[in-house]
Amino acid sequence: AGAWRERVRRTVPDLAERRRFWQLALTGEVAAHCFAGRDAQSEQALDAALDAWHSRSPERARVGEAYLVGAGPGSPDLITLRGRQLLAEADAVLYDRLVNPEILAFARRDAELVSVGKAAHRPSISQADLNRLLVERVRAGQRVCRLKGGDPMVFGRAGEELEALADAGLPFQIVPGVSAVSGCAAYAGIPLTLRGVAQAVLVTTGHTQDHASANLAAFKPGQTLAVYMGVSQFDSIAAELIENGHSALTPVAVIENGTTDRQRVVRSTLRDLARTCRRLAVVSPALLLVGETVRCAERYGWFNPAAAKHSRDTSDHALAKVS
Amino acid sequence: AGAWRERVRRTVPDLAERRRFWQLALTGEVAAHCFAGRDAQSEQALDAALDAWHSRSPERARVGEAYLVGAGPGSPDLITLRGRQLLAEADAVLYDRLVNPEILAFARRDAELVSVGKAAHRPSISQADLNRLLVERVRAGQRVCRLKGGDPMVFGRAGEELEALADAGLPFQIVPGVSAVSGCAAYAGIPLTLRGVAQAVLVTTGHTQDHASANLAAFKPGQTLAVYMGVSQFDSIAAELIENGHSALTPVAVIENGTTDRQRVVRSTLRDLARTCRRLAVVSPALLLVGETVRCAERYGWFNPAAAKHSRDTSDHALAKVS
Repeated sequence: AGAWRERVRRTVPDLAERRRFWQLALTGEVAAHCFAGRDAQSEQALDAALDAWHSRSPERARVGEAYLVGAGPGSPDLITLRGRQLLAEADAVLYDRLVNPEILAFARRDAELVSVGKAAHRPSISQADLNRLLVERVRAGQRVCRLKGGDPMVFGRAGEELEALADAGLPFQIVPGVSAVSGCAAYAGIPLTLRGVAQAVLVTTGHTQDHASANLAAFKPGQTLAVYMGVSQFDSIAAELIENGHSALTPVAVIENGTTDRQRVVRSTLRDLARTCRRLAVVSPALLLVGETVRCAERYGWFNPAAAKHSRDTSDHALAKVS
Repeated sequence: AGAWRERVRRTVPDLAERRRFWQLALTGEVAAHCFAGRDAQSEQALDAALDAWHSRSPERARVGEAYLVGAGPGSPDLITLRGRQLLAEADAVLYDRLVNPEILAFARRDAELVSVGKAAHRPSISQADLNRLLVERVRAGQRVCRLKGGDPMVFGRAGEELEALADAGLPFQIVPGVSAVSGCAAYAGIPLTLRGVAQAVLVTTGHTQDHASANLAAFKPGQTLAVYMGVSQFDSIAAELIENGHSALTPVAVIENGTTDRQRVVRSTLRDLARTCRRLAVVSPALLLVGETVRCAERYGWFNPAAAKHSRDTSDHALAKVS
């Protein structure tokens, strides 16, 4: 590895560029061959990687680009390979408050990390200022990773940022993420569709300014309902669903800090939802699931946050520390 | 690395175990320090990893376990880090036909790969036989990765396999994936929710045996509708939506082979949907999106499958070849 470092230093003299080169090599064939003891193949792969690096046009390397990346539902290892790769390449990272800070360990050491302090629907800087920040940096030639909790295309207000980028004629890529709904369902053991029980999933918010009533009215038996970000509105959501004809005993689950080692799954009924959550002091981020499929949590719940925390604390933090 | 290989060979004498050890080290701190030239830290990290490996109880290592893993929407780099890790650890992989075969490159070289030939709702082996296969292998002590297209909890019939595992008292983990809906939305440039346009997403199937009519009736303006697997039913779906009061000119998009370098986005209206798809010979897997947000594809579409294919063909296939 010493001799290689020297070769790469000669071929890629710029430090920031070289760091980027090694990051790619680290996740690639070079490392795979090296650790498997296939030295000749490893050497060949390094040659190929250096050639490929060189043939990139220098103009192309200097054009800025925005990456809208879904960070996934909470646990840092639920980001996609593609998401992690673009996060590791970015010159700057603009991240939401809902993003697990451990995920930022995947960013370059010299990347600028900017919290835009945004929980869904509650930007601490205005959406207009955020759009401006994004556009200015990309225009200046930076590769900017706009890191959003869950999936950027579901309640991520991606549309407004994409419009600003398109309006400015700037290039972007969109990397999907595991949504909070998929993450919470998997880690709570709740199939969102289930033969003979639920054949559709309705995803909406609990925010009244977003026409919550009209969307809650669309929820019918035979579906699973997922409501984002409604802890303070649980009272009115439950009342409305009961008024729409759903049984007061319809099962519900609230998943707080889903997929992380602080996950809590609170099961109740429409009737007792708000009271139970107040008693247990449930806070955001929390996802509400409603419908018969929720009963499955009792039988298919497998995730033990305490054990996960212990295993993380005693392991070498392999994933979180690669960067 | 040579001296290390010798140490690891002494400490982890079993070949299969050793291969697993290196796989973990490859994605961890050891490799990160090594490539950054921090040799002392790298050595320390290797020591810690070997210690941790040793302190695992041998009983625990021999208990079988099922991993229900979402492979993501198509492109191999849209699997999660966690999903790739469990896929790389598994002794056997039972995979759906819808899973991109390139993703199987992440499996161990000595893992048994079993196609269960299943597209959604069309198992080539019966669900009962599949459940039996899964249970028998886990009971025999294997770590079995059940690899499903998209997200396992959405139209993945996870419930039936979880029931078989729970019934047999066997341990399992569920790893969410990027759903086909999230993947296609990102790669076609269609925000599923959009301020002032759509505040809910309704996900269902086009299969009549699953009460499609009842679920299609729940779709209202102000939502985005996603229909899985309905190419042959586009005629009846469109007719039904128009009958339910939706304008014949409601925009629709069909995303064929979403997120892969064979992706095709076909835009049309409810009225012309079936005719257009027949003319362009659209085939499964294809996802249907309906609603005003679909118009965004024209402005926010960024993914160029031809360029992606070229870049893959000329690159070192870094991601696909790590295993």
